[in-house]
Amino acid sequence: MTTNEKISALRAAAKANGGDGVLIMTSDPHCSEYLPEHYNALMWFSGFTGENATLVVTKTGSALWCDGRFYVQGDKQLAGTEIECMHAGSAGVPTVAEYLTAHFAAGETLLLDGSCVPAAVANDYAAALKKSGAALKSLNVYDAVWEANAARPALPATPCRLLTPAQTGATAADRIAMVRAELAKQGATALAVTGLDCVGWLLNLRANDLPCTPLAVAYALVTKDACTLFIAPGRLSDADAATLAENGVTLRDYTELLPAVQALPADEVFVADEKATNYDLYTALCAHKTVAGADPIFALKGIKNETELKNIRECHIRDGVAVVRFEMDLEKALAEGKTLTEIDIDTMLQKRRAEMPGYFEDSFSTIAAYGTNAAMMHYHAEGEVNSVIERKGFLLVDNGGQYDCGTTDITRTYPVGPLTDNERRYYTWTLQSHIDMARAVFLDYCTGFALDSFARGPLWQHKINYRCGTGHGVGFISGVHEGPQSLRPNNAVVFKPGMTITDEPGVYETDEVGIRIENELECVDLGENQYGHWLGFAPLTMVPISTEPVLVDELSRAQLDWLNDYHARVYETLSPRLNEEEKAWLQAKCAPLQR
Amino acid sequence: MTTNEKISALRAAAKANGGDGVLIMTSDPHCSEYLPEHYNALMWFSGFTGENATLVVTKTGSALWCDGRFYVQGDKQLAGTEIECMHAGSAGVPTVAEYLTAHFAAGETLLLDGSCVPAAVANDYAAALKKSGAALKSLNVYDAVWEANAARPALPATPCRLLTPAQTGATAADRIAMVRAELAKQGATALAVTGLDCVGWLLNLRANDLPCTPLAVAYALVTKDACTLFIAPGRLSDADAATLAENGVTLRDYTELLPAVQALPADEVFVADEKATNYDLYTALCAHKTVAGADPIFALKGIKNETELKNIRECHIRDGVAVVRFEMDLEKALAEGKTLTEIDIDTMLQKRRAEMPGYFEDSFSTIAAYGTNAAMMHYHAEGEVNSVIERKGFLLVDNGGQYDCGTTDITRTYPVGPLTDNERRYYTWTLQSHIDMARAVFLDYCTGFALDSFARGPLWQHKINYRCGTGHGVGFISGVHEGPQSLRPNNAVVFKPGMTITDEPGVYETDEVGIRIENELECVDLGENQYGHWLGFAPLTMVPISTEPVLVDELSRAQLDWLNDYHARVYETLSPRLNEEEKAWLQAKCAPLQR
Repeated sequence: MTTNEKISALRAAAKANGGDGVLIMTSDPHCSEYLPEHYNALMWFSGFTGENATLVVTKTGSALWCDGRFYVQGDKQLAGTEIECMHAGSAGVPTVAEYLTAHFAAGETLLLDGSCVPAAVANDYAAALKKSGAALKSLNVYDAVWEANAARPALPATPCRLLTPAQTGATAADRIAMVRAELAKQGATALAVTGLDCVGWLLNLRANDLPCTPLAVAYALVTKDACTLFIAPGRLSDADAATLAENGVTLRDYTELLPAVQALPADEVFVADEKATNYDLYTALCAHKTVAGADPIFALKGIKNETELKNIRECHIRDGVAVVRFEMDLEKALAEGKTLTEIDIDTMLQKRRAEMPGYFEDSFSTIAAYGTNAAMMHYHAEGEVNSVIERKGFLLVDNGGQYDCGTTDITRTYPVGPLTDNERRYYTWTLQSHIDMARAVFLDYCTGFALDSFARGPLWQHKINYRCGTGHGVGFISGVHEGPQSLRPNNAVVFKPGMTITDEPGVYETDEVGIRIENELECVDLGENQYGHWLGFAPLTMVPISTEPVLVDELSRAQLDWLNDYHARVYETLSPRLNEEEKAWLQAKCAPLQR
Repeated sequence: MTTNEKISALRAAAKANGGDGVLIMTSDPHCSEYLPEHYNALMWFSGFTGENATLVVTKTGSALWCDGRFYVQGDKQLAGTEIECMHAGSAGVPTVAEYLTAHFAAGETLLLDGSCVPAAVANDYAAALKKSGAALKSLNVYDAVWEANAARPALPATPCRLLTPAQTGATAADRIAMVRAELAKQGATALAVTGLDCVGWLLNLRANDLPCTPLAVAYALVTKDACTLFIAPGRLSDADAATLAENGVTLRDYTELLPAVQALPADEVFVADEKATNYDLYTALCAHKTVAGADPIFALKGIKNETELKNIRECHIRDGVAVVRFEMDLEKALAEGKTLTEIDIDTMLQKRRAEMPGYFEDSFSTIAAYGTNAAMMHYHAEGEVNSVIERKGFLLVDNGGQYDCGTTDITRTYPVGPLTDNERRYYTWTLQSHIDMARAVFLDYCTGFALDSFARGPLWQHKINYRCGTGHGVGFISGVHEGPQSLRPNNAVVFKPGMTITDEPGVYETDEVGIRIENELECVDLGENQYGHWLGFAPLTMVPISTEPVLVDELSRAQLDWLNDYHARVYETLSPRLNEEEKAWLQAKCAPLQR
């Protein structure tokens, strides 16, 4: 079937169901950042494979909106089809809402699958349609077309497992109680948990439904006296189902959340977040009383407990050993004159991680980017896009692992031969930014916005900026990007002890060089004095940072001290797990820098 | 008349006017930070002389709320009276609103002078009263009691003058046009200008109605086709009145704003700010259409134009010469073994400023604080509170002048004898904080909150904080504290070129030492590149910073470079205006520091 045939079929399905058009977006019932392919109808109908897109089909035309990362790809993939590629955010390009106002007439109806569109987005579109006298109706007419004409990927249903309290430091019952306490604070009595990471945290539930993110497609529903897990039958072992039952958790089928919500009494008070709840569910919640607010689990799981932190520290030691061994392999291969590609780097790393106990998959697709490739922040070697590592300049490697004791994320930028003066300067300034973030001491009212300045300061002195946050939260055996905390302009979450965060400033000079130095940090309590309550960071990542490119005179004494202290700690922490050859190698890498 | 007699008289006046109680606060019709004494009824009735207080008199009792700065003073000044001193913000102390709910019964009425209470405050109190079925009524019953029993200070009516376009770079007509353009952007057609600084900016109007703040008690009213100045008759010269008339400005009596607003058509659209508009005026505005928002003049006047900046730079040169001469006088007096008190310091400074062309008064009461006195942030030598300067430790001097070309604010902390190691450390860290703010380079999305981190960072490294902002905006021949920009947590105003700001971090260790180093800075445009639009700061203040206490090894190379560059610039800028002896003195003070 060609794309145009698929769009025609969609148009016909709309007409047959009393609609005058269809809207499909890359979203799922859980408002996930990454979708199971099962939900990526937009890709099948349009042929566009990027993220964060919206397709609108009217009686006479069709258009697809993609963001700046995907303009080129969108133009290419939609060429020759009837779908107009809309560069969202570009001057003169209408928004989806503006397009709907212009293309739907009074009395017409747009169909969208309300289970796969956030309520705030659907309400925005409904308002846009209303301006022309048109209306929006929640109805999924595209699944039937898709399933009649292709093998639609099934909803993932990998085997589930429960993490133990030895891993997470809390039973499901403990966490349900924490959520109920938060609901009570907000004057609410019920919560429909839709984020897969939130369901996973609440019930210690894990699976492998998504690559690199060990979560299960499921919902939970918490009320004052009940907690229900909505998941496809048969995914849990009998033992795990029994454990959940002991924790007061009942099982129901994945498809039964909506009727379960509808069956609750009208005076149940839900916490409801229009932005993070699908339109159909939000409509069902609003038939009860509601309190506007984010799922309290986001804030709760952002702060790791003592058991999680202990496990995370262990996880980073294992990951450090793997990365040290990889670095030794890399140096050896370079010294032997072997031809190495970016994909080889990924393979070498995975081999070393796979040797570590508790490792089960990467936490995201490794970015191994040589030379100018590293200047493209979203670069990913794959297929024919795969540069050979020359013996000059830098190799940037950003990767991480999922272990039975945590999730890691680390970037190092390795010199693989002679460096230019500019490369040394950029590397040194990036390191200064990294260190100034890591060694920040701050009062307990600071948000990610206030702290972000510490990392940007050193690069800003040279009028260089990175067009991304300084860092993101990291899940626990979960998504490698998990908030609510982050280090970036406009993040208003206040930092608290137990939060983990990446510290990953960088320099990305187009066609010249890309450098990033990333550790994970743990927010730690530094005690109180007359001025207030002090916080700081302790590094979780235990891997040496290449000192060869550093222009030592650029570093302040405090920055130099931090670097030498960090390397002493890396050596002390990793060496007991290394053989003599590895120890000697690490000792050299961790040698203190002198002016 | 005793305080209790005054309170009884107030109670009787309330009863005679159908009220069951009276509320008086330290505010005026312009919601000013500092009040003309004419409006300080609270002080006359209660005997309390502090700022930011509220007095409530009920049928059977009375209470006065003061903030943390004034707890001790309040307790002392209210002792022996019937008025209960309420420590606002302390645990267990009811707020004014809570007190009103508890002390007024259904059907009772609280009288307050709606012309002297911000609308947001009055509305808050009305809501608190409503909880008990009581009500609020705007009625001034205290003026009659005050005027019948004492010589109430008259409303100030000092001679007015108009600044020239050579001073301000804009005529009144220019500025009225700027305001109309801002109103149009907000969909508004009218503005009642109530802030004295805003009226002054709009019409180039100045007077001496308040100490240290050369403004006139007046209002303005701007509509699409008219602009009216409301001011007591006879305060403007005929020439100035003619100039205003040429600029399209009509004069009316100060008392006629309210009827003028009421006379405008109902479809006039006012910009209205509940927090910064008195209750009576806000009520009158709300009889028209309104758009909620701050007076656009706050944002406009925060950004100085090129003429103002040129004048401000000149102003700081004059002020620098005066301060240099004062410092020479101080050194000489110390060397000669003269007994010097804190008040002597103020006198010596005023003498030198008075020699400078264009100076007409100080911009605030000088803070000259010796030794441990400087640890009290609100210390002010006066009367018997006046320490002798010993020959050890530090003398902190914070002061500024009003000139015909601008307003200054500077703090220096002088070593007057041997220093302890702690004193040197605190001084050095304060200097590092000052420098890191002054040399910040940042993108044009940064708010005061984001930038504030740069100044606090170096002190925070030592777990020291100052319990105030890093800096405030400064008016142009106007208030020394003028926003909307400031460097402090929670300030969300984005910095723009042309804003001026103080940079005044400090260390205040109780009973030990107080140190502050303050320059004024100008926000400057550093150009654009691929990363965005860069801004930075240039120092306006031109006075050497004592280098004798500095622990040079603590400074980074960049900090040392900044300090040496600053001193080179101070010498280059001031020396042409100095005699040979002064030049030699300044050259020594500006000598580069070496490691």
